[in-house]
Amino acid sequence: MARINVVKIGGNILDDQEQLNEFLKLFAQLQEPSVLVHGGGKMTTEMCSRLGIETKMVDGRRITDPASLEVAVMVFAGYLNKTMVAKLQALDCNAIGLSGPDGGVIDARKRPITNNIDYGEVGDIISVSGHLIKQFLQLGFTPVVSPITANLSTGALLNTNADTVALEVASALTTHFETHLIFCFEKDGVIINQSGEVAQTLNIDQAKQYQKEGIINTGMLPKLTASFKALDRGVKTVRIGHYRQLRQIEAGKTGTLLESGDSEWA
Amino acid sequence: MARINVVKIGGNILDDQEQLNEFLKLFAQLQEPSVLVHGGGKMTTEMCSRLGIETKMVDGRRITDPASLEVAVMVFAGYLNKTMVAKLQALDCNAIGLSGPDGGVIDARKRPITNNIDYGEVGDIISVSGHLIKQFLQLGFTPVVSPITANLSTGALLNTNADTVALEVASALTTHFETHLIFCFEKDGVIINQSGEVAQTLNIDQAKQYQKEGIINTGMLPKLTASFKALDRGVKTVRIGHYRQLRQIEAGKTGTLLESGDSEWA
Repeated sequence: MARINVVKIGGNILDDQEQLNEFLKLFAQLQEPSVLVHGGGKMTTEMCSRLGIETKMVDGRRITDPASLEVAVMVFAGYLNKTMVAKLQALDCNAIGLSGPDGGVIDARKRPITNNIDYGEVGDIISVSGHLIKQFLQLGFTPVVSPITANLSTGALLNTNADTVALEVASALTTHFETHLIFCFEKDGVIINQSGEVAQTLNIDQAKQYQKEGIINTGMLPKLTASFKALDRGVKTVRIGHYRQLRQIEAGKTGTLLESGDSEWA
Repeated sequence: MARINVVKIGGNILDDQEQLNEFLKLFAQLQEPSVLVHGGGKMTTEMCSRLGIETKMVDGRRITDPASLEVAVMVFAGYLNKTMVAKLQALDCNAIGLSGPDGGVIDARKRPITNNIDYGEVGDIISVSGHLIKQFLQLGFTPVVSPITANLSTGALLNTNADTVALEVASALTTHFETHLIFCFEKDGVIINQSGEVAQTLNIDQAKQYQKEGIINTGMLPKLTASFKALDRGVKTVRIGHYRQLRQIEAGKTGTLLESGDSEWA
């Protein structure tokens, strides 16, 4: 099977034009066909605050009321997605922006209220069309996927965690490709002690231990959950690392390599 | 050659959820493969005002400074485009949203300052990939095109008049299809006297005369300019009519049919 990368880019990099340009340049130089999945960064929060809309977070996930969904759609599917696609086009990378409803690529359902938490207009993914993404790749496009999804039966737009979108896109592609999932952020990998040492490999048992010791912080948990699930679903490798080392991560030379363990995660 | 419709939907309909739903239902029922081009409506102006950004207009065209471009991208390419695509998906129409940079479908350049008017971040279209739109149609997609374009060489996003986008998309498709351009709004066609009579046909000479007499208002001028240019470039028919009669317009039974004349328009 042909190889493919699914690269998730984190929020902080999107907030900084210089870092974003640097990342996109490296992304456009990847050896293998790639799909980019992006999150949001601070722009949605800032836009909400300028518009007088309160932003609520639980466990690092945004609580999305209808007013902040509207802003999330504008920022993620509109400004950030089109900014990245246009910049990639200028770098000779034939990018195409996709949100969930586009071509029906992602079908989602509003998350039911659980443990008394109503996440609001948040979408749990029920399917990703790996076939569609494969078609686009075969036509020479580089899909740039935003975390805006939709219930394709009702037409309601929804907001999904971008790490989860990356996981689901990667999982859906395993039928068609040898799929490699890369989480890019502004650190060299998963940090495992106070002196900032980065793990070369990390399995479920180790991750649990580091979490118990409070070394792994809550911001890392959605990434780890997505990573271990991805391995479970047949994604070939998952690496977490620095966006500046994207090409070395693709070559398997750096970043933290996630490994399954004997126990279950979460 | 196979037949295709390029349907432009006007701003006022986008401002009203009920009218928009009604229009999209009719659009999804069209007999022939279709491309939808949409403009903006009041949401950009409202969003700009909520954010404290002033909106300037000259000759019915928005003057786009960098701050209002950001808002236009959020509203047109984000909120409106994805709202329409998701609603069409729920109507079993396999819509895919496209802004200019997506797949490099529209290449544009910032309009030079002319007659001392700096339109700001406004894009003059230099090419539309009819080939790409044809590929999408062959894959069974219904392209939904926003008026956000980009300079594909620099990666800068730009704002283009949606009537012009419809004209350029229709023109680019004439090589591949028998192309029919339909401008939909909330009137039955081009009104040609004080009692509200609608022209069944309208040629350049008649349009010039009605304009001179002040019967055709400035809001109609960009549509007429786009219409006559489209005929010039090989678009088979151009009709202007009521969105509620979209299916009858497609069947050639209603709306104002534009015709070339002996003289030149503009």
